[in-house]
Amino acid sequence: MKRTITIGREFGSGGRELGRRLAEALGIEYYDKEIIDAVAKHTSLSEDYVHKIIDRKPHALFPITVGQSMSYMENYYFQQVQSVYQAQTEIIKDLAAKAPSVMVGRGADAILKDENPFRIFVYADFDYRVKRCMERKEAPVSSEKEAKRMVNEIDKNRAKYYEFYSNQRWGDKLYYDLCINTTDVVIKDIVPPLAEMLKAYL
Amino acid sequence: MKRTITIGREFGSGGRELGRRLAEALGIEYYDKEIIDAVAKHTSLSEDYVHKIIDRKPHALFPITVGQSMSYMENYYFQQVQSVYQAQTEIIKDLAAKAPSVMVGRGADAILKDENPFRIFVYADFDYRVKRCMERKEAPVSSEKEAKRMVNEIDKNRAKYYEFYSNQRWGDKLYYDLCINTTDVVIKDIVPPLAEMLKAYL
Repeated sequence: MKRTITIGREFGSGGRELGRRLAEALGIEYYDKEIIDAVAKHTSLSEDYVHKIIDRKPHALFPITVGQSMSYMENYYFQQVQSVYQAQTEIIKDLAAKAPSVMVGRGADAILKDENPFRIFVYADFDYRVKRCMERKEAPVSSEKEAKRMVNEIDKNRAKYYEFYSNQRWGDKLYYDLCINTTDVVIKDIVPPLAEMLKAYL
Repeated sequence: MKRTITIGREFGSGGRELGRRLAEALGIEYYDKEIIDAVAKHTSLSEDYVHKIIDRKPHALFPITVGQSMSYMENYYFQQVQSVYQAQTEIIKDLAAKAPSVMVGRGADAILKDENPFRIFVYADFDYRVKRCMERKEAPVSSEKEAKRMVNEIDKNRAKYYEFYSNQRWGDKLYYDLCINTTDVVIKDIVPPLAEMLKAYL
């Protein structure tokens, strides 16, 4: 198996768990936060800041400016966002060239377009994702209302970021080889057969 | 394996071939045109006519009427469409209750909603589907232009029919468990591992 497996995922769908287990089952590398760590090192920005840039829509980090006076700041932020994206692109391409791996998020499917990655998208019903998000405590939420807001917000930002850089619609099945619905599915049960399938597919 | 596997598919994506091969690999029944045959017998309408009703949007068979004079005809056609749909629904439910099978098209996924079928959607790039349609000669097309028109037209009608009866968006990944992109894929190569995956999944 030579192709990188990329995983796009809706927040709360278990895409990260699926990716991690898939990499384990296939005995290959798994990259998720590791990419951010590497970008942070590469750009000497903090991991936290890099995370914010990557998970937010590209414009979100720009200050609201009035008149000419802020144009320097605006330019500064824009350059940071661009340099993070540039560093990320290089790191993702380097990692993909080294060895087969599973890469979660970061628009890796679009970045690696020319290398023909196997592109998976993981999704689920909205209510299921809210429930999963609350049960798993992946993020600190105090109420269902807050979990719903978070699921909506994070996906909206992922979509904006992805679409800004890839010029493709995030989650549109046409840009993926396989789309997996995880609603009411026990992820660890489906990963072994999925891995078997991918071995032959790749 | 107890769940029926339903296959929705874009025209020219090879969904029917995938379904047939999948049923073979799993050693279960395969229903496609057989459903239409059964509906035709059940309703004493010709297979050809039933096919037209099923593959067209529900309104397509209604004559354009002006005033009161055509209301009897209108009503007559509407009743035929409804009786075909009713017969089809019963036949699909009967077949699903008998034994596990692969069912292609006919909105079977929505009809069997309460029986929890495993819902696959097969799709591909538009250009690939046009190419496949011309190569396979699945339908008599004399030019690329005609093939393009046909791919568009058939999918538009499938979508209308599906959406009219199911109240779900045709091809929207949320209504399927697995969406498979067949662009540049050799279907017979991916079916054996897919069958392995489904054995564990179902």
